[in-house]
Amino acid sequence: MSKIERVGVSLDRELLGQFDALIEKQGYANRSEAVRDLIRSRLDQEQLADPETDAVAGIFLVYDHHAANLSAKLTDLQHNHLLHIITSTHVHLDHHNCLEIIILKGKVREIQALADRMTSLKGVKLGRANIMTTGKELT
Amino acid sequence: MSKIERVGVSLDRELLGQFDALIEKQGYANRSEAVRDLIRSRLDQEQLADPETDAVAGIFLVYDHHAANLSAKLTDLQHNHLLHIITSTHVHLDHHNCLEIIILKGKVREIQALADRMTSLKGVKLGRANIMTTGKELT
Amino acid sequence: MSKIERVGVSLDRELLGQFDALIEKQGYANRSEAVRDLIRSRLDQEQLADPETDAVAGIFLVYDHHAANLSAKLTDLQHNHLLHIITSTHVHLDHHNCLEIIILKGKVREIQALADRMTSLKGVKLGRANIMTTGKELT
Amino acid sequence: MSKIERVGVSLDRELLGQFDALIEKQGYANRSEAVRDLIRSRLDQEQLADPETDAVAGIFLVYDHHAANLSAKLTDLQHNHLLHIITSTHVHLDHHNCLEIIILKGKVREIQALADRMTSLKGVKLGRANIMTTGKELT
Repeated sequence: MSKIERVGVSLDRELLGQFDALIEKQGYANRSEAVRDLIRSRLDQEQLADPETDAVAGIFLVYDHHAANLSAKLTDLQHNHLLHIITSTHVHLDHHNCLEIIILKGKVREIQALADRMTSLKGVKLGRANIMTTGKELT
Repeated sequence: MSKIERVGVSLDRELLGQFDALIEKQGYANRSEAVRDLIRSRLDQEQLADPETDAVAGIFLVYDHHAANLSAKLTDLQHNHLLHIITSTHVHLDHHNCLEIIILKGKVREIQALADRMTSLKGVKLGRANIMTTGKELT
Repeated sequence: MSKIERVGVSLDRELLGQFDALIEKQGYANRSEAVRDLIRSRLDQEQLADPETDAVAGIFLVYDHHAANLSAKLTDLQHNHLLHIITSTHVHLDHHNCLEIIILKGKVREIQALADRMTSLKGVKLGRANIMTTGKELT
Repeated sequence: MSKIERVGVSLDRELLGQFDALIEKQGYANRSEAVRDLIRSRLDQEQLADPETDAVAGIFLVYDHHAANLSAKLTDLQHNHLLHIITSTHVHLDHHNCLEIIILKGKVREIQALADRMTSLKGVKLGRANIMTTGKELT
């Protein structure tokens, strides 16, 4: 367990008031937690700008499950990137549409490339990758 | 099944060449599919700007599983929003960190509020919501 | 001049070390200034989510100055929104392309609508609006 | 002047209807122009992901003009990066706040670094860089 330090921050009263109002709305118990989250989020963003960063991600695909062979192609792509896939979840959206969420680890660059490959398949209507650092360094 | 129309688009040859190179890299089988994806993605973005839009989302939380009562609090929050949660998946990242992915449906506004509440809990290091339209209207 | 308050924030030593490294790279003189900027940026983002927020913006247009009547059309659009435009700057990029930066004030919704109208003109290759709160409340 | 090609795109009638409604709202004269803009915007985004890409940008700074020596420091930073600055525009926002928009050319990486340096100065409340490709390749 690493050591906690206490840091003083000078803030204009009015800015502090606005910040307090925002974090109360969001549900924070105290300012320290809210400031830590701002810092972690900024570091996360900085690290993800490097395509070689180790990351964890969810690839979201909305697709028409009547599209010929699409499931098979998605499964093939996942197997060809076998090392990275952790789990995938399938959600029934309506009569035509499914949502598939593929959770995986890998370098930012690799995750983006796989997301592009999947999104480009015929029948996939929307594809998006939500990429985050693995938290290892975000104590 | 709705009817397919064929639309003609005029493009400068050089712009077309760059587009073809990009979509080949991404893995598209043909230009129609790539143009459809650009259009769907633009419509998705437009619709999500309205907080009352029905959406499907994944809330991603990286958290320290040693944090006191955090699991219980996250579960409570999910139960208090019972109607929306579809599934949640738990991933072991390392000795300290977990990734929880909560898949849910609801209005953009509600999803964002729940994500804020969860992210603000002590022990949650990173929180992010990936929000998409449900695909119903993206034929 | 409003009053300064001093707030204590508890941080894990390792997180603090990473934050210090980042803000040193960015050139911050001290942590307080860096934390204030994180807070202001978060508040700015929150306020801009409301389309009725008063904002200041730059609309950036890359366009081909050989396009017929484009300058006249852009000028017309600016005059029809006369109240908001503060200034516009024209930059010569190369033999074909110009960059026009239009600085204006108005509600987020209005700025976005004008940017859409300008971007949609034939000859405009790229259009983007950079929107910020007016800083009035960001003490 | 480069040659125009005509490309056929197959689209579901319902998707086409939604796209037509959106682009009419935005003010497009025809579909070709709207599709070209989607393509250019996608290529712009792709190219800017490479930090070595030549770009044109506006750095927006909202700052308190009473802050000691801030103008001088901003001017110094601009002179130390002399090659890139094209123009800068100053806007009076209210009794305390100014907006400075600095237009410059350079590599994405350099622009981001200068924006970070400027944003980190004491008295600068908000800083943001809007970065675009120079349009040279976006015919």
